[in-house]
Amino acid sequence: MKAKVRILDMYSGRYSVFINEKEAKKAKLHPDDLVKIEAGKKTVYGSVVISSLIKEGEVGVSKDILQLHSFSEGELVTVLPSGAPESVRYIKKKMRGEKLRKVEIETIVKDIVDRKLRDIEISSFVTSLEINGLDMDEIAALTIAMAETGDMLDIDRKPIMDVHSIGGVPGNKTNILVVPIVAAAGLTIPKTSSRAITSAAGTADVVEVFAEVSFSLDEIKRIVEKIGACMVWGGALNLAPADDITIKSERALSIDPTGLMLASIMSKKYAMGSQYVLIDIPTGKGVKVETVDAARALARDFIELGKRLGQYVEGAITYGGQPIGHTVGPALEAREALSALMTGTGPGSLIEKATGLAGVLLEMGGVAPAGMGKKMAREILESGKAYQKMREIIEEQGGNPDIKPEEIPVGDKTYTFTAPTSGYITGIDNRAITGIARAAGAPEDKGAGLELYVKVGEKVKEGDPLFTIHAESEARLDQAIVFARRTEPIRIEGMVLQRIGNI
Amino acid sequence: MKAKVRILDMYSGRYSVFINEKEAKKAKLHPDDLVKIEAGKKTVYGSVVISSLIKEGEVGVSKDILQLHSFSEGELVTVLPSGAPESVRYIKKKMRGEKLRKVEIETIVKDIVDRKLRDIEISSFVTSLEINGLDMDEIAALTIAMAETGDMLDIDRKPIMDVHSIGGVPGNKTNILVVPIVAAAGLTIPKTSSRAITSAAGTADVVEVFAEVSFSLDEIKRIVEKIGACMVWGGALNLAPADDITIKSERALSIDPTGLMLASIMSKKYAMGSQYVLIDIPTGKGVKVETVDAARALARDFIELGKRLGQYVEGAITYGGQPIGHTVGPALEAREALSALMTGTGPGSLIEKATGLAGVLLEMGGVAPAGMGKKMAREILESGKAYQKMREIIEEQGGNPDIKPEEIPVGDKTYTFTAPTSGYITGIDNRAITGIARAAGAPEDKGAGLELYVKVGEKVKEGDPLFTIHAESEARLDQAIVFARRTEPIRIEGMVLQRIGNI
Repeated sequence: MKAKVRILDMYSGRYSVFINEKEAKKAKLHPDDLVKIEAGKKTVYGSVVISSLIKEGEVGVSKDILQLHSFSEGELVTVLPSGAPESVRYIKKKMRGEKLRKVEIETIVKDIVDRKLRDIEISSFVTSLEINGLDMDEIAALTIAMAETGDMLDIDRKPIMDVHSIGGVPGNKTNILVVPIVAAAGLTIPKTSSRAITSAAGTADVVEVFAEVSFSLDEIKRIVEKIGACMVWGGALNLAPADDITIKSERALSIDPTGLMLASIMSKKYAMGSQYVLIDIPTGKGVKVETVDAARALARDFIELGKRLGQYVEGAITYGGQPIGHTVGPALEAREALSALMTGTGPGSLIEKATGLAGVLLEMGGVAPAGMGKKMAREILESGKAYQKMREIIEEQGGNPDIKPEEIPVGDKTYTFTAPTSGYITGIDNRAITGIARAAGAPEDKGAGLELYVKVGEKVKEGDPLFTIHAESEARLDQAIVFARRTEPIRIEGMVLQRIGNI
Repeated sequence: MKAKVRILDMYSGRYSVFINEKEAKKAKLHPDDLVKIEAGKKTVYGSVVISSLIKEGEVGVSKDILQLHSFSEGELVTVLPSGAPESVRYIKKKMRGEKLRKVEIETIVKDIVDRKLRDIEISSFVTSLEINGLDMDEIAALTIAMAETGDMLDIDRKPIMDVHSIGGVPGNKTNILVVPIVAAAGLTIPKTSSRAITSAAGTADVVEVFAEVSFSLDEIKRIVEKIGACMVWGGALNLAPADDITIKSERALSIDPTGLMLASIMSKKYAMGSQYVLIDIPTGKGVKVETVDAARALARDFIELGKRLGQYVEGAITYGGQPIGHTVGPALEAREALSALMTGTGPGSLIEKATGLAGVLLEMGGVAPAGMGKKMAREILESGKAYQKMREIIEEQGGNPDIKPEEIPVGDKTYTFTAPTSGYITGIDNRAITGIARAAGAPEDKGAGLELYVKVGEKVKEGDPLFTIHAESEARLDQAIVFARRTEPIRIEGMVLQRIGNI
């Protein structure tokens, strides 16, 4: 049927196509049927909503569609029913545990990006991957297909470095130090990061405290070619868009199939043109990867996948058993990172990890001799060159380069937990710390989070402060206090761990 | 948030809950988030659509919700975000290949019916079942949970018989003869059937040619207690509603996991109070069950499941290698079935199968001695008693009991295919026959379908008619002709099947 477009001011989380009741009946269309809208060279797939609010001769489109496709009010289009996408056959092949060919994976990814596959099919694909897995041939094909169905960047300033943390450790503002150190050494590092999904602050959330993080690929190219670095939000770009779609199913099911995780991370690096990639794999209780053996296996997978993509990849297994530094939450972390860059010093865990990772990158990029990377990274940090590079990044990204840590506003509703007993800190629960910061409002409330005064192994006396919660409202502060009381974020034990009485 | 209900005239295929942009931001709700609407004792789950078309203080609900829940315009309700449903954990357990406990299956089914689980989770469940399967304990728990989360019928006229065909054979109007034969013998048989999904005519589509098929459970109870039988559409009832929801995923993925298929069929029988159930398993090339071994295994599963449900079940493996009778399509099949009931004769395949199945039921129900059921069924058919019962059914279901076969309108746009060569009919392709009838417009166009003049094994001469396509419009007739030419619905071979030349 031919129809005039009516743009409907709504976001449904899918491409919704509204059709008049009578016309739907005539065309034998039912709610949620897949249809395609054709106009000139563009074809857009969507899900039918039947409504008498739409007149005959009209077709309503939800604004979700306009995020990637342009339609104008009154534009004449053709709406056609669409059969089952071919790629469903390949999803079924994976259900049967068979290996997918390159072209089959490409078809699945293309159909995901084109929205020909919807929640049902994508969830089935993700579930099949969780159960039956992917081998390295399939992962490489998936990675390349995910990158090539989105936008790709070609930065004219080589070599291009990248660093990615698998995540899970609260307070991990490390890369905010790593990027300026590496760029200050003359290497190129166009860092894209995500916002927090389950954590209290993603790198993009922290950087946003200083500067803008949403840029187009052209703007990123200009910035990076000028100063060698950026720290932007990947989500604003059309990098590996299939990943942004499949993640919805992964999140609803709280699964993260290994092959898909590898492809998700590496497709974005591939799209950004990264040549040398360092994967930081925090390892310990309460993070994604709990054992060193699992971390090693994962590192090997990244390295092997890198080879297939023509990238040189290294993995760094880092200690993830407790938070990094002393702060958790966007503004508090921004303060701590900025302070470390300005003074060249800071909490041991932050400085050691940042210079360690930066050092590996300096060696990978050929600007530091083998074994000398970390020393060079520390010199760059202490000399103020990294801070100078950070100022350039902030300025190019539209922030105020003169900002001081103490000028960054943090939540002024605070509550401090103290040690109920004397003893040693025997454990800090990553998940509980993240939970408290989120209960306090992080990452949406930039000023929310917490300051930690103790680390594992330290001795405390009864009444010593353990951590202070910051929130922007009393209500969120109360929520965080309640959450903190329900969990045991910090464990204190005497040297006598157990007392055995007379038997 | 508190809000006044606004009923939106639309069907989206899901429970859509429209929320104003500002309020969504305040409540941190995103498109497609799960929310619950609470009003008094009722709680309804739905998916967020964010729209400035809805005012602050209002919440829009799509009409999909009103099919099972009552809301009035302006009713004051509370809208709350809903966390991830507990049952996702059990779906993940099945992903890992573990056995589910009864209470876990009950929770999944309840969450499906409550719409707490949506496409993503349901598709993941269905995919996990396809890959990892269910054992009989799990299937029994699933069957009972599916029945008990819907409406159930208690007919005061025992014993209650039922017959179900697994389907896949074109032209299978058999049960339209079986039901009146069984009821004429004094047994009770409240038959619910489906409309065609992938076939050219479901039993409900054919019956609808004579009479209404949509009735409430109360009406069904009244009809069956009066005349001992009905032939209604199960889809209009709230029998095992979880099945109606999961089928959406199965259809999109074109999978039908065995455990779910068993539960789907038997939950409806259980809800109808059936005590004696005969499962017709057509077997042959081009139907769901291709080999006798597979049919036997399936029959054993049905029998075992019946035992768990307190039902006596038998399986009948029937020949499904070619269409039943000579007609395919609702009106054409209705003509053939009615004619057989009126005259007591008809195509061998139809009469043999119908009296065979009815005979088994007569023996199961204790009205025929062992081994005498088929003979008794044939007598009931030939005596006109089955036709008399059919007239009662038609009358009670609001149709015209005096209708004659030739009065049933069939598509008047016709085209006849003839034998291109002389020889023997060596094969009739079920899938091609169904495809032709559907291309001609069946099952929506009641008069569309085809008449078959030949059966496997028969001898034909070049130019003999093979089949006539009926359609209600020239356009559909053309589509069916094109489809027929592309396939090889009827295979004719000489006695010399292959000619080997000089090597």
